[in-house]
Amino acid sequence: MAIEWSGSRDVHLELPAAGPRRQAVVAAIRQAVRDGRLPPGARLPSTRVLAADLGLARGTVTAAYDELAVQGHLLIRPGSGTVVAGPTGAIGPIPARPPAAKPQRLSLLAGRPDVSRFPRTRWLAAARRAVTGAATADFGYGDPMGHPALRRSLAEYLGRARGVLADPDRIMICGGYAHALATLATVLREHGGPVAVEDPSLPDFRRVIRAAGPEVVGVGVDADGLRVAELPDGLAAVVLTPAHQLPLGGTLSARRRTELVGYARRTGALLVEDDYDGEFRFDRQPVGAVQALDPERVVYSGTTSKTLAPGLRLSWLVLPERLVGPMRAARLATDRHTGVLDQLTLAEFFDSGDYDRQVRRCRTAYRTRRDALLAAVAEHADVTPLGVAAGVHLVLLLGDRTEAAVLAAAARRSLALDGLGRYWLGPGPHPQGVLIGYATPAEHAFGPAVRALIGCFDQESH
Amino acid sequence: MAIEWSGSRDVHLELPAAGPRRQAVVAAIRQAVRDGRLPPGARLPSTRVLAADLGLARGTVTAAYDELAVQGHLLIRPGSGTVVAGPTGAIGPIPARPPAAKPQRLSLLAGRPDVSRFPRTRWLAAARRAVTGAATADFGYGDPMGHPALRRSLAEYLGRARGVLADPDRIMICGGYAHALATLATVLREHGGPVAVEDPSLPDFRRVIRAAGPEVVGVGVDADGLRVAELPDGLAAVVLTPAHQLPLGGTLSARRRTELVGYARRTGALLVEDDYDGEFRFDRQPVGAVQALDPERVVYSGTTSKTLAPGLRLSWLVLPERLVGPMRAARLATDRHTGVLDQLTLAEFFDSGDYDRQVRRCRTAYRTRRDALLAAVAEHADVTPLGVAAGVHLVLLLGDRTEAAVLAAAARRSLALDGLGRYWLGPGPHPQGVLIGYATPAEHAFGPAVRALIGCFDQESH
Repeated sequence: MAIEWSGSRDVHLELPAAGPRRQAVVAAIRQAVRDGRLPPGARLPSTRVLAADLGLARGTVTAAYDELAVQGHLLIRPGSGTVVAGPTGAIGPIPARPPAAKPQRLSLLAGRPDVSRFPRTRWLAAARRAVTGAATADFGYGDPMGHPALRRSLAEYLGRARGVLADPDRIMICGGYAHALATLATVLREHGGPVAVEDPSLPDFRRVIRAAGPEVVGVGVDADGLRVAELPDGLAAVVLTPAHQLPLGGTLSARRRTELVGYARRTGALLVEDDYDGEFRFDRQPVGAVQALDPERVVYSGTTSKTLAPGLRLSWLVLPERLVGPMRAARLATDRHTGVLDQLTLAEFFDSGDYDRQVRRCRTAYRTRRDALLAAVAEHADVTPLGVAAGVHLVLLLGDRTEAAVLAAAARRSLALDGLGRYWLGPGPHPQGVLIGYATPAEHAFGPAVRALIGCFDQESH
Repeated sequence: MAIEWSGSRDVHLELPAAGPRRQAVVAAIRQAVRDGRLPPGARLPSTRVLAADLGLARGTVTAAYDELAVQGHLLIRPGSGTVVAGPTGAIGPIPARPPAAKPQRLSLLAGRPDVSRFPRTRWLAAARRAVTGAATADFGYGDPMGHPALRRSLAEYLGRARGVLADPDRIMICGGYAHALATLATVLREHGGPVAVEDPSLPDFRRVIRAAGPEVVGVGVDADGLRVAELPDGLAAVVLTPAHQLPLGGTLSARRRTELVGYARRTGALLVEDDYDGEFRFDRQPVGAVQALDPERVVYSGTTSKTLAPGLRLSWLVLPERLVGPMRAARLATDRHTGVLDQLTLAEFFDSGDYDRQVRRCRTAYRTRRDALLAAVAEHADVTPLGVAAGVHLVLLLGDRTEAAVLAAAARRSLALDGLGRYWLGPGPHPQGVLIGYATPAEHAFGPAVRALIGCFDQESH
């Protein structure tokens, strides 16, 4: 016979149907402790509750607890309950929180924001408004496209801040850009054609596309962004970073934007605009979204991973109308929708102006960092920065130095750094370079990280 | 020339490179209003900020705002800023929250909990502890398996409450059961064999499996759960609901559990145990998880969708060791991981005992509802309830009545009800029945819903 008690905590125990009851309770609890199902520090129900649940006399359970205590399995603390003892009979409390993974070294890895800037207090205030103000129905299964409140807030924000023609009915909330891209790629699989990406580009996203089915081909970039004239026919889609090419940092020129949309109209290929750091332009050359040129051929994608925190896993797509149905079906066949409380909290965060404030604060801080970085690098005339006008990263071309030598020097200085090498699809030779994620460190670690970086150049013989 | 201002809010404007400046500002703002990028009620930056950003004299911008106000596009409110006017010149404020979708009728649809029981205050308190106590690194990209704090809390809970042998290193946090199943199904695709599901079973999950690749075959169930002897060889996996079969409500017998594990050992098929309402057993026949019989052959799956709210999209898998690597890779190729703040909040919710308290409260309430429902149905001797010992739903077999007639009568009474018909895979004839999700209504709506249901039987001629 199996017993499950409903005291302060549920514990599943198996009691034999017959035989002495006290021994049965002792054996069942001992087994649960040995299995690890009752770990050190776990609290047991009171003898009253357990006796009632098992249909036994309370004295039987008390005797069983006493016996287990004598055997060293339980620790009875009058007034504060009975808990499972540790291996030595001492209480081994379950830590409420794991020891935080201490960053063991400096980091200028690209693609991350300074997460110490996450606005905890304001986010909590928004969460309070969201949870308090939510309709009861919001806690049930939601719309695969995302909560209407967030989609409306986003439509307003994307329209004014990024020049996106965003109809709330075309916005889908996703769990980060990788999730959005993976979902898109399953829909693109129907097309049968390959997906073009920029060469160089982030290898992670190539893996995401391939895992969903489509083949991936690379098309070169230069200072004006993707070389549109080199796009082959027959593509299912072109995925690109027009505002700030990842990694080289170019901006897709006005002429190429027009050519790109012309290409899409001629071939039927979908354009996927990854506006991953569109909020972070520092110099007076802002560029709007390609999406505004032809909302029926461009999917616009944005994320909170650079403005708030990657850990949130929140992003959005603005879809051409013909993709709304297939994308909705794709979500229903996988995760149904993104968690509603995060969505409502983000909606409150937009509506209160907190999102704009956060972006503005980060932009100011990152611009200052960029300037300091460029000033430090300027002492090395053979190191050439690229993509400095925007974003949360830039590239340093290394001249005669090799990427391997600089990365080795960085490792000796306990500095995490990303080389350009793994970003290329095509065969080399490629220019040697490293990516500098200058938004990555916390404020106090930025100076030391830059000094360590400069030290790599000072030291390297070349 | 494109201008993006960095005042209180970002707005993307396109100004021509040459020509009179005031007219250019007027035209750009008017265009943004017409495009809907600046909707009614949107606040514009101050003339000082915009002038600085555009490199214009402040008087030029003031004159442009005045002109737009005269034209009816803007509304200048001294002291409280300039906003976009509505179509009639009146302010059309952006509603902070959409009108909640009012449930238009009673519902006894299955598979949902009473979401009005969501513990908002306690959840918010847990969220406060989670956000305040999080390590900075928690806001960055996280572990695809889930946050270690939540996995440790879950291991403790699943061990004591459900008899699951749960090692935190084998637990993966997912975005609901559908998401967990979809991820598993992509990994099972490699096997090449079909996936068996119970017949009848929830059609949604068959779609999820098929969308990921594997074929689906149905295997019958009876009062003892899945008819294990009927499982064909060559299966990639068997997905089942052993604690409370969905929909018929049987519990997999001890003998069948042993046979099932034997089948898995002999054929190498994976067992996927969907413990979707394992917390809700009302009578003294609790059953532990099949997983404990052979953790290397059983994937255990649980969710907060029945205990807290489906909208949260939080669930967990306990994996055999050999699946940890492939599942981790599958998450990296899609959504990377579940949002960290929800994960940390749920960990706090477990550690504080709030989760146990919530389960206990719901269990008491749902048992009372079940008893009331059974008492009401008892007046109709030809209606037979199934699966009453547990869960958040039961089935009513309809005797000589047809499902179609009862569903039509329910629709006339504005009662949402789910028929058994769509749950079957194989060809009929099948017993006529309806599913009753007695946890679904809010407390005040439960009585009316049951009365409407009984009315369907009173009325129906058969």
